[in-house]
Amino acid sequence: MFKKVRRILVGKPLKNEALQDQKMGVLWGLPILSSDAISSVAYAGQEVLMVLIPAVGMLAFRQLSYISIAIICLLMILMLSYRQVIDSYPNGGGAYVVAKENLGILAGVTAGAALSVDYVMTVAVSISSGVEQFTTAFKGFKPYSVVIAVAMVILLMIGNLRGIRESSRVFGIPAYAFIIGMVVMIAAGFAKVAGGYVPPPAADMPDVVKPLTLMLVLTAFSNGCAAVTGVEAVSNAVPNFKNPSTKYAKRVLFLLSMVILVLFGGSSIIANIYHVNPSHGNAMLVMIAGEIFHNTKFDFMFYYITATTFIILVLAANTAYSGFPMLISIMAKDGYAPRQLSMRGDRLSYDNGIILLSVLASVLMVVFKADVSKLIGLYAIGVFISFTLSQTGMFIKWKRSKEKGWKHKAIINGTGAIVSGIVVIIIAFTKFREGAWLVVILIPILILLIFKVKKHYEAVMRQLRLKPEEIANFDINKAVYRNRVIVPIESINRSSLRALRYARTISDNITAFSVVIDEADAKKIKEKYKALNMDIPIVVKYSPFRKVVDPMLKFIESAEYDYQNGDMITVILPQFAVKKWWHRFLHNNTRYYVEKELLKHKHIVVSVMPLQLRDDDFVLNSRKYD
Amino acid sequence: MFKKVRRILVGKPLKNEALQDQKMGVLWGLPILSSDAISSVAYAGQEVLMVLIPAVGMLAFRQLSYISIAIICLLMILMLSYRQVIDSYPNGGGAYVVAKENLGILAGVTAGAALSVDYVMTVAVSISSGVEQFTTAFKGFKPYSVVIAVAMVILLMIGNLRGIRESSRVFGIPAYAFIIGMVVMIAAGFAKVAGGYVPPPAADMPDVVKPLTLMLVLTAFSNGCAAVTGVEAVSNAVPNFKNPSTKYAKRVLFLLSMVILVLFGGSSIIANIYHVNPSHGNAMLVMIAGEIFHNTKFDFMFYYITATTFIILVLAANTAYSGFPMLISIMAKDGYAPRQLSMRGDRLSYDNGIILLSVLASVLMVVFKADVSKLIGLYAIGVFISFTLSQTGMFIKWKRSKEKGWKHKAIINGTGAIVSGIVVIIIAFTKFREGAWLVVILIPILILLIFKVKKHYEAVMRQLRLKPEEIANFDINKAVYRNRVIVPIESINRSSLRALRYARTISDNITAFSVVIDEADAKKIKEKYKALNMDIPIVVKYSPFRKVVDPMLKFIESAEYDYQNGDMITVILPQFAVKKWWHRFLHNNTRYYVEKELLKHKHIVVSVMPLQLRDDDFVLNSRKYD
Repeated sequence: MFKKVRRILVGKPLKNEALQDQKMGVLWGLPILSSDAISSVAYAGQEVLMVLIPAVGMLAFRQLSYISIAIICLLMILMLSYRQVIDSYPNGGGAYVVAKENLGILAGVTAGAALSVDYVMTVAVSISSGVEQFTTAFKGFKPYSVVIAVAMVILLMIGNLRGIRESSRVFGIPAYAFIIGMVVMIAAGFAKVAGGYVPPPAADMPDVVKPLTLMLVLTAFSNGCAAVTGVEAVSNAVPNFKNPSTKYAKRVLFLLSMVILVLFGGSSIIANIYHVNPSHGNAMLVMIAGEIFHNTKFDFMFYYITATTFIILVLAANTAYSGFPMLISIMAKDGYAPRQLSMRGDRLSYDNGIILLSVLASVLMVVFKADVSKLIGLYAIGVFISFTLSQTGMFIKWKRSKEKGWKHKAIINGTGAIVSGIVVIIIAFTKFREGAWLVVILIPILILLIFKVKKHYEAVMRQLRLKPEEIANFDINKAVYRNRVIVPIESINRSSLRALRYARTISDNITAFSVVIDEADAKKIKEKYKALNMDIPIVVKYSPFRKVVDPMLKFIESAEYDYQNGDMITVILPQFAVKKWWHRFLHNNTRYYVEKELLKHKHIVVSVMPLQLRDDDFVLNSRKYD
Repeated sequence: MFKKVRRILVGKPLKNEALQDQKMGVLWGLPILSSDAISSVAYAGQEVLMVLIPAVGMLAFRQLSYISIAIICLLMILMLSYRQVIDSYPNGGGAYVVAKENLGILAGVTAGAALSVDYVMTVAVSISSGVEQFTTAFKGFKPYSVVIAVAMVILLMIGNLRGIRESSRVFGIPAYAFIIGMVVMIAAGFAKVAGGYVPPPAADMPDVVKPLTLMLVLTAFSNGCAAVTGVEAVSNAVPNFKNPSTKYAKRVLFLLSMVILVLFGGSSIIANIYHVNPSHGNAMLVMIAGEIFHNTKFDFMFYYITATTFIILVLAANTAYSGFPMLISIMAKDGYAPRQLSMRGDRLSYDNGIILLSVLASVLMVVFKADVSKLIGLYAIGVFISFTLSQTGMFIKWKRSKEKGWKHKAIINGTGAIVSGIVVIIIAFTKFREGAWLVVILIPILILLIFKVKKHYEAVMRQLRLKPEEIANFDINKAVYRNRVIVPIESINRSSLRALRYARTISDNITAFSVVIDEADAKKIKEKYKALNMDIPIVVKYSPFRKVVDPMLKFIESAEYDYQNGDMITVILPQFAVKKWWHRFLHNNTRYYVEKELLKHKHIVVSVMPLQLRDDDFVLNSRKYD
């Protein structure tokens, strides 16, 4: 039943070969890789204002300009740094790889842990912000924000389990649509003011104005840093570009930075002119669009901006759906995460990773009520930790290689590392109470867990590995095990005879074993057994409620059974295979318990023998085996 | 881990012999068997008033007196009827047994289904009413009613899993405490009025008075019928009495009826005098106690009444915890319920039945917000259906036996049956919309399910049963199966060699089977396998993601494998046994999936071979088996 539902939702399995994708150039590379980065325009500026306005009122808009300039500088530094990552890692230079290779495994694992946290946050923040855009335009849906947000995550999960490819061109179109819409809106905003329009004074501005403290500015800056998250996406995706891939990748990275510059800078200036006052459930971009386009013949542009912003935010979340499972699968292949996460599902997607990401993001959204302002406290710190580690790794790489021009390159990456590091400290400091503490605690715990996982896998590998001489000297015919069989018998019926017959084919040392609750019971089974006239001995033991495991283990250890080193005891358990799913609840299923308990003993093999039952009046449908 | 928690909560397992209990006489029999019946005094009268007051105001109190008289007559008829059940069924005459024996299996199963529903309702109604008493005295807890109610059920569940015995004398004391308290309160109530006290006019009485319709009276009567539920408990428990058990049982039944008469009748008259206006969250008994004892030097009596009422209601729920699992286990032994429900747990209690009852009652309380008025619509109908069937069964029994004085006896049970039947119709009619429809639908569905279960068990039994000639002609040495082995190999390691060695001890016809994803993979495994220098052939198949089940089944069906009728194929699967619980998540656990899929085929036996892994730097701790 579950299988059918799964098939309908997720689709038919795909073959291995379907993995190959079309490679991308600049035209499609830009929109496909940019959604995470450009979508942050929808919340970064707004969250800066939401920190500043309640404290300093109208003064906030000027501060927004300054902070925007600082963030754009940060963006340029990162852009230059990542150009060099692209050159050095044409096979994709994620922070995990770069840090692991150059700084060692601890740094790599730290970057991996930080990035994992970041991906989860990307989903939570982007979807929450997307829902906020939507409910700003359609206020009636505001009470259902959390439900809508979780529903979006479920849709993304299903889509990704079906194996939608991030690199599919269809995802490029909304990015262009958003960029064009934003550029139009910014231009129209300037034009309207130039045409003599005087924006109304901002609503709900606080009367009391507090002093503008450094702490306040840094807190606002921390929120704004969300704008540059996503620039690393290009360097991760170099192998997806056409040849010469590094050239195309660098070009896309440059263009992406320019787009962010224009959109983030432009929307900051427009916000300054139209001084809107965003709040939870009132998204800045949608408010600006309303200001500019409402009551004009371009009213449709208001819905266009709302729609494209919503879609680009959903797509941004979708990038995490390819990033997170991929990262986790690389770490799992290295033994740093549960192995199941490295396996592709039916549709060639990393199913377990996709489900894990959806669950974590949903939990966050429910806990934080899909409130972007609350979630943003946890965001960005993970990204900047991975930026710092990746850039530090690059710096060390240049220093070690001492190749031509290394000093120049080292300075760029070194600057990137220092600046990112400073941002980490600023965010950790200003946002500590708003949630960054959670991330600060979570990442070390994750690192610890990751190393525990690795330790386990290494121990297992050591235990399974064969020495060359063990292979050379292997002799299958050397008798190592003595094979003995125990057949538990509840009553003398078709099933138990079948088990005894099978036992006879695998061993000459068989014991039938029965557990009874009283004398009468014992006598009955012994008599019936005797009637079968076999040379296989039966052992009958007493136990309340016919519990079989303990008496059997006791019997095996007893002198009566004469267990010897090297004896491998096969216990044959019948399994009733029923036709209807609910019939399963009608059988004890003690088989599972007995099997689990017996398998704790290294000298016991459990053989499960299926017996197919029908509900109609037939004899066994496997007559030939009776 | 789960095991440890279980041990702490539920306690150590008990031996079979602990089942014997002390037999009871009248002194302890009365309180122990009465809690269900007498506790209904706490809600039956109140729910009569809650139907009448909103419609007819002060007139309700007079109607309460009439209805009480009718219910007391009903009680007397039932008492006389059940005296005869006690005489006829000294081994315990539950409705299921009486109806099955005299009216046939359909009636028996119907009674069983009705009683099961009733037991669940007893828990839900008693606990909800208990919590209501408590929150009437301590209003601050009212918002947490549902939480407290569910917590109480969980406590009862744990207590019963530990195996508390309903017949433990400790449960007799609160019943006496409650009876004494009630008698004192009723007496004090009369004395206070006789002393010149004039009770204040009832609060919140409606001004508009509607006409007193028959429908209204019958609805109120239906609610009041809850007062007589529980009288059948004595007839179920005859074997628990000292000899002569039927004599003691009849004496207890008589005393019990008298107690209900005094408490129910008395509290109705007192309610009439003090005209309290109960509502959800304002329990009548506690309000009366407040009226009588508040602002007197007997104020402690208010808390005494609250506490003993609360405790007696919890104990009433507890009677369902012995009744329900016992009933279900009897039905399960007859094959009318899943067999697991017939098995006693570690502590000699019917664990599965106890858990099932707790879950169902909790769901009801959550859905109906622990509101007695809403739950009572579902109550009583089940009880009266079983009364009707049981009394009809007795009537038929007398008619058939024609023993001395049968006519007299038949008249008594016949009257019981007719009266109970009328009550069923009244409840179903008046309470249909308030929830009785649920029971009316549920019981036939339950009956259908029960017969489906029986049908399945019978089919299974027919398939397992051996004919005498099959036993006589059985020859274990007649070769029926040809034994072949397949050893799936993921890579050449210690675990796969161990599986191959074991395979060699059980068969001479072995095939190693490996699934690879590409040519390189295939070459690697073939080379490694060759180095082992064995005479066992290896078969290598391609499959995306190394999925093993489908390729293996295909291989078995292929000409290459040459499968013959009578071949029994043993597939050996290694199972990693890990030391720490969380390590389980680090292994694929595909074993479970593979096992499940393979066991769908009647000619495949799955042998699971455990391999114990350690987390420290050891080789296998079972060196002797390598």
